[in-house]
Amino acid sequence: MNMNVWTIETPGGREQLSLEKREAPTPKEGELLIEVKAAGINRTDTLTRQNTQLKAPYPVLGVEVSGVVVKNESNSSAFKIGTRVAGLVNQGGYAEYAVMPADRAIIIPESLSYVEAAAVPEVFLTAYQTLYWLGELKNNEKVLIHAAGSGVGTAAIQLARQLSDATIFATAGHADKLEMSRQLGADVLTNYKERAFDKDVASHTEGTGVDVILDFVGASYWDMNLASCAVDARWVLIGTLGGSQIKSLSIGDLMMKRIALKGTVLTPRSDDYKARLTREFSEKALPLFNEGKLKPIIYSVIPFSELPEAHRQMEENENTGKIILSLEK
Amino acid sequence: MNMNVWTIETPGGREQLSLEKREAPTPKEGELLIEVKAAGINRTDTLTRQNTQLKAPYPVLGVEVSGVVVKNESNSSAFKIGTRVAGLVNQGGYAEYAVMPADRAIIIPESLSYVEAAAVPEVFLTAYQTLYWLGELKNNEKVLIHAAGSGVGTAAIQLARQLSDATIFATAGHADKLEMSRQLGADVLTNYKERAFDKDVASHTEGTGVDVILDFVGASYWDMNLASCAVDARWVLIGTLGGSQIKSLSIGDLMMKRIALKGTVLTPRSDDYKARLTREFSEKALPLFNEGKLKPIIYSVIPFSELPEAHRQMEENENTGKIILSLEK
Repeated sequence: MNMNVWTIETPGGREQLSLEKREAPTPKEGELLIEVKAAGINRTDTLTRQNTQLKAPYPVLGVEVSGVVVKNESNSSAFKIGTRVAGLVNQGGYAEYAVMPADRAIIIPESLSYVEAAAVPEVFLTAYQTLYWLGELKNNEKVLIHAAGSGVGTAAIQLARQLSDATIFATAGHADKLEMSRQLGADVLTNYKERAFDKDVASHTEGTGVDVILDFVGASYWDMNLASCAVDARWVLIGTLGGSQIKSLSIGDLMMKRIALKGTVLTPRSDDYKARLTREFSEKALPLFNEGKLKPIIYSVIPFSELPEAHRQMEENENTGKIILSLEK
Repeated sequence: MNMNVWTIETPGGREQLSLEKREAPTPKEGELLIEVKAAGINRTDTLTRQNTQLKAPYPVLGVEVSGVVVKNESNSSAFKIGTRVAGLVNQGGYAEYAVMPADRAIIIPESLSYVEAAAVPEVFLTAYQTLYWLGELKNNEKVLIHAAGSGVGTAAIQLARQLSDATIFATAGHADKLEMSRQLGADVLTNYKERAFDKDVASHTEGTGVDVILDFVGASYWDMNLASCAVDARWVLIGTLGGSQIKSLSIGDLMMKRIALKGTVLTPRSDDYKARLTREFSEKALPLFNEGKLKPIIYSVIPFSELPEAHRQMEENENTGKIILSLEK
């Protein structure tokens, strides 16, 4: 069976993206074959496109899809043919068919469309993992979420509000992103172009600081993040939008505040890790989509044939929320 | 009831240590009154002695004792009068009587003397906490223990060997400390005056690194520790013998290896934390002392009247293992 896929001519810019015909994949034991209805665009896709380490034949890009089960080679009866699922795949997402380990598939809540469902896995699983598995956020604690208008940021604000009744500090650089943060549940908003966020944290915590930081920024926020940490804070390093190189670090500061500084990336984690994360997320958070308490945030829906435009939006940082590629006719 | 205690004339050197008479303390609800038989010397004691922030009346020094229960104001029947106990106290340890929260008392294993028991709480609780609560050491993982001849180092090697069958990398600067490490269960020994430990870690792990580092050294080992971290390593910052200031740090390195860097100090932790730690240690590790699988490492036993000599040994770093003050007649 042939299908249309997006791959590359050779590693490079958007002009290298190539729509081709390939043989549809065959699911192995434990996997599902999915007819793809929508695919999420992720930063890792644009990085893979440019990765000069890759050798031909080049992979089909894309790590996040929603669609319908057309073949079930797992021993789970939850994934009958026709079941609507979404989840992370190991490449091969920008295609009419994709294979996915069954233990990484999320059954799509009734209230969500395929386009909405494709906007859930990467940002909500990353937000859940960083807030709870790494950040160990407990009920009624205080959390500082940077890049509050990003996909993971908007998901994290919703989870911290709905699952933990946290006090949420959010930073962003535009009034509309801050307004969205407020609507999603953030309590204290800082426009970083106007004010230093550590002052807002100090004044709203009587100087005691926050218990968890989701840090997408890195170097440029280092000293303010350190100043914002409470004793026993968990500071999760997810991104380096503000640079990676710290010019000095005092171990004594980390010791006296007993700070846990945790670096993380999700994509290279093991299949088992992703399966356990998917299972816990499905139990604890997924039902809240049907109740309307959690919602995917979508910036744009782009037809499958216009992938280069989707990559352009991501690379020019136009989006607040997810960019979704639609394969629905 | 009067008792002899060690306090200070004024903050300063060993010449300020002062043997005085004070009223014996009265245990509050939940506390034990202990007739002290032996007291451990700790770095925090010499630091308290020099702390110019302190105001008179100055405290009785000492945070670690063994002895016999003479009064039980807790509602636990485990601490009958005459019970042999050891544990951490909030100051007041260098004295003939001391009060201790009952939930922080360890019942002394039959096979240990009072002097041996006074050598257990601080180093073994710290080693247990850093290896298991912070380091999350799992069975058969690899652990790198610096300052292997120190009190906490010798305790950590024994725990990692007996509780986790870990592969243990130990560093120290003297052949006799390395030989003791080997006898206690370390697998790969590095004399840091002769070789770079990261080379030994790499060659014995096929370049994959260790899962846990207990880091008492800090700045001077920073790059070698980073190089020695496996993916998903837990790197516990306990001391800064080699300096506190790191000149540069790449957040990207912490992210790509998914390193958790955790600063810690035990003394200022909450009473509840210390009680939970004591309980778990008593269940999981304490029985191994009677089986001869764990043993306190003692460097010297000094009579109560000669405390300044005990502080001299600690401040001149003479000791391998604990310095114990004995009050037994």
